[in-house]
Amino acid sequence: MALKVGILGLGTVGTGVAKMLLDTQGRHSLLNELEIAKVGVRSLKPRSVSLPDALYTTDLESITTDPDIDIVIEVMGGLEPARSLILQAIDHGKHIVTANKAVISRYGEEIYEAATAAGVYVMIEAAVGGGIPVITPLKQALSVNRIQAVMGIINGTTNYILTRMQTEGGDFDSILTDAQQLGYAEADPTADVDGLDAADKIAILGALAFGGRINRDDIYCEGIRNISAADITYAKNLGFVIKLLAIAKLPNEPDLNQNLNQNLNDIQVRVHPTLVPISHPLASVNGVNNAVLVEGDPIGQVMLYGPGAGEGPTASAVVSDLLQIAASPTQPEQTNPLLVCSHNHTLSIVPNAEVVTRLYVRLMVKDTSGVIGKLGTCFGNHNVSLESIVQIGIQNDLVELVVVTHEVPEGSFQKALAEIRQFPEVIEIPSLLHVL
Amino acid sequence: MALKVGILGLGTVGTGVAKMLLDTQGRHSLLNELEIAKVGVRSLKPRSVSLPDALYTTDLESITTDPDIDIVIEVMGGLEPARSLILQAIDHGKHIVTANKAVISRYGEEIYEAATAAGVYVMIEAAVGGGIPVITPLKQALSVNRIQAVMGIINGTTNYILTRMQTEGGDFDSILTDAQQLGYAEADPTADVDGLDAADKIAILGALAFGGRINRDDIYCEGIRNISAADITYAKNLGFVIKLLAIAKLPNEPDLNQNLNQNLNDIQVRVHPTLVPISHPLASVNGVNNAVLVEGDPIGQVMLYGPGAGEGPTASAVVSDLLQIAASPTQPEQTNPLLVCSHNHTLSIVPNAEVVTRLYVRLMVKDTSGVIGKLGTCFGNHNVSLESIVQIGIQNDLVELVVVTHEVPEGSFQKALAEIRQFPEVIEIPSLLHVL
Repeated sequence: MALKVGILGLGTVGTGVAKMLLDTQGRHSLLNELEIAKVGVRSLKPRSVSLPDALYTTDLESITTDPDIDIVIEVMGGLEPARSLILQAIDHGKHIVTANKAVISRYGEEIYEAATAAGVYVMIEAAVGGGIPVITPLKQALSVNRIQAVMGIINGTTNYILTRMQTEGGDFDSILTDAQQLGYAEADPTADVDGLDAADKIAILGALAFGGRINRDDIYCEGIRNISAADITYAKNLGFVIKLLAIAKLPNEPDLNQNLNQNLNDIQVRVHPTLVPISHPLASVNGVNNAVLVEGDPIGQVMLYGPGAGEGPTASAVVSDLLQIAASPTQPEQTNPLLVCSHNHTLSIVPNAEVVTRLYVRLMVKDTSGVIGKLGTCFGNHNVSLESIVQIGIQNDLVELVVVTHEVPEGSFQKALAEIRQFPEVIEIPSLLHVL
Repeated sequence: MALKVGILGLGTVGTGVAKMLLDTQGRHSLLNELEIAKVGVRSLKPRSVSLPDALYTTDLESITTDPDIDIVIEVMGGLEPARSLILQAIDHGKHIVTANKAVISRYGEEIYEAATAAGVYVMIEAAVGGGIPVITPLKQALSVNRIQAVMGIINGTTNYILTRMQTEGGDFDSILTDAQQLGYAEADPTADVDGLDAADKIAILGALAFGGRINRDDIYCEGIRNISAADITYAKNLGFVIKLLAIAKLPNEPDLNQNLNQNLNDIQVRVHPTLVPISHPLASVNGVNNAVLVEGDPIGQVMLYGPGAGEGPTASAVVSDLLQIAASPTQPEQTNPLLVCSHNHTLSIVPNAEVVTRLYVRLMVKDTSGVIGKLGTCFGNHNVSLESIVQIGIQNDLVELVVVTHEVPEGSFQKALAEIRQFPEVIEIPSLLHVL
C-alpha cells in the first residue's frame, strides 16, 4: 500500500524531491510505494516540476493535519512556522523528514520527545552534509564504535571562500563579494561566515555521536571574517591549510601533571577556523564540498565526503530518509530501533579554558634582542609547551613572529597571552587560531 | 530475547568481533541483545580474547547446524570450506555475516538464491573497504539515485606501495620487499599486487550499484608490478598520481560520430593502475587507506574514506551488520527490504575495445625530425584525439615521449598503437596506462 507524502515548501530542495519521486526509474523500487499527496506552498504560481494543480495548497495545516498523509517532508526552512508545523504533524501521527538544521539543533528535544510519544520517526539526513550519508552511518554502522570525535567541514560557503583565498591569495572581503555575485554566498552571509550554520550542524552530529543532547547556545563559535591572506600564507609555509572546522570530541586523555579535573563525560563542541596539517584527510576537501570525519574505537578514522548543498544532493538525502521509513515498520508498537532517537539527557560541554588544543598566534614585536626568549619564558611559566617560534619577516621596523604550541589547556595559553600583551616590545597580536 | 551468534574463525577479524561483543559499554545498546554462543576454530589453543572454554569447538558444522544459533559470522576466509559452511548455515535458517569477498564475488548468486529461499539475510559490509560504511550506503541511502559510477582504491597493500613509490621515488620491487617485512604485504602478494582482490571487491560493489550480478571472470584486471619510478615522476609532472583503481561505470554518453553500437545497459568493470588528476578526491587517498567514490543522479559525487583493513575496522563492519540484523524483523515473511538481495539477472560487461577512456603511453623513439608529427597523424587516422605529446627527455640518443589522449575508444587506440609499434623510429613502448 502506498505511503502518502505531504511536502511543506517547494523551493530548491522540495522541487528536487518531487522530481525524484515523480521519476523513479533506475532508483530503489521501494520508492514506487511513495505517493505525493499534497504540496504546501506560499503562493500558487508556475513551477519547474509538473504536479497536478489539485495537489497544491497554501493552507499548510491542511497537510499536517490530513488523516490520509503518512509522512510530512519539511523543506521550507526557518524556525517558524516550520517548528510548529513539524510538531503539529507529529501530533497527528505523521513521520517527519526535514532538512532544517536550525529547527532540529534548537528544538530537537521538544520534537523528539513528541515523536517518541507519538511513535513516529523524525529523519534528518538532509540537515547536515547535503547528500553525504552521515546521519544514518552515525546512528547505525558507526554506532557500534565508541566515538571519540566527529568533526568536519560542514559549511560549503566558508569552505568555498577559504579555498579561493588559499588558491588565489586574495583577501576575505573581495572573495566574499565575488562569492555573493556567483551565488555561493547569501546577501546576508552572517549564518555562514560567522559559523552559526556550522554550529547548528555540529550540535546535531555531536548529539548523535555521543548519545546526548547538546545545548546549541553553549557551542563556542568563531567565523572566518578575520582570516587574512597573510595567515593563509604563513600557515601554508608551516604545512597547514586553514579550514572552518566544526568539532565535537571527547577531551584528550588528561595529562596527570595538568590537574585539570576534567570530567570525562564532558565533550568539547566548537566551531572555529583551524590550521589543518596538509596531510590530514580534511585538508584536501575544497570548494563547496563538505566532509565529516568520525574517529572511534575500534574503527579508527573514517571520512564521508561530498557535495554539502544543492538541489540534487539534498533531495537525495531527503528521499533516502523516505526510503528508510518505507522499509520500516510504521506501527508505533514496533518501530525500527535504528531510526528512533535513543537519548534523553543533555551532555555538558567543556569550558573553553579547559579545552586542550594546539594554537597558532602571530605577533608584531619591536626588533630588540631577547624578545623571543622573553616570550618563550612567559609561555613556559604558564606550562604552555611550544612547538615553534618562527620569525616570518620584518614590516615597518617590526618583527613578525609566529608561535605554534603543542597541545595545551587553552586557559593557560590565554593567561600567558594576557601577560605578553603587556610586554612593551609587543605592538600587536593580529591573529590567534586553533591548530588541529 | 538475545540473538545467539556463532563465529567461524577466530583470526584477526574474529578476535576483533568477539572483543566488541564482550565489551559493549559505550556502543549501541542493541548489541547487548547479541550473545556469542559458539566459536569455531581450527585448533584449541590460548587466545587473546577471554571466552569460556566451553564455547570453542573444532567441529564447524556443529555451529552451522545448531538449531539454537540465529546468526553465523564467517570470518575464516578462503573459498572452501567457507562457501559450503555458509550454504549449510543458510539451509539451517541462519542469517550470515561475512567478510569473505572471494566467496561472495564468485558464489554470490548461489548464496543469495539460497538466502532468499530461506528468508535469511547475508550481510557483507566487511567484505569491501574494511570499516568504511560502503555496502549499506550503496544498498540504502545512495540507491535512491541512478548510479553512474562506483570506483575506488579498495586494496590497501597496493595503495601503500604506490604511495611509498610516490613519496620516496623508489622502485616497485624494493618497496614490495619492504612492505612484506613490515607486514603490509603478504609473503605471496599475488592477490593484492595483481589486482585480484580489488577485482573481487569491485564485482561486489558493481553488482550493488547497478542492480545485477557481475561475472567475476569477465573483469579486466591489471596489477601494479609494471609501474616504474619513471612513470610516477612523469605522471607527477603532468599533474597526476598513479593509483590502482577499481571501476564499475556506465559507458560515457555515446558520441554519435563514433558509431560504437554501445548497449547502454552494459557496464564497464575494470581494475588497473590509473593516472588520477591531483585535484581529484581519490588522489589524496594515501597509505593503507581505502576510498570508494560513488557518482549518481542527482547526488553528484560522494566519497567514503577510511581504513581498508585491520582488526578494528573490519570488526566494526561485521558488528554493524549484526546491529542491522538485530534491528530488523527476522521472520521470513517480513524481512527488511533494504537488507535483502533484490537483483537476479547478470549484467553484461562492455568489451575492452569498446571502453571509452583516456590513455597515457610512453615511447622511446629515435631522435629524427618529424617523428612527433608522424605519431600524431597515425593517432588522428584512427580518430584518437590527443591531449598532449610531450618530449620528456633524452636517454642514450633516444627521445622519450609521453602521449596523453582525450577520451577515446580503447580499440581505436590499440589499432593506432599496433601501427606505431611498426614505425622504424619507435624502439620501445615501456608503458601504457589508463587516465581517469
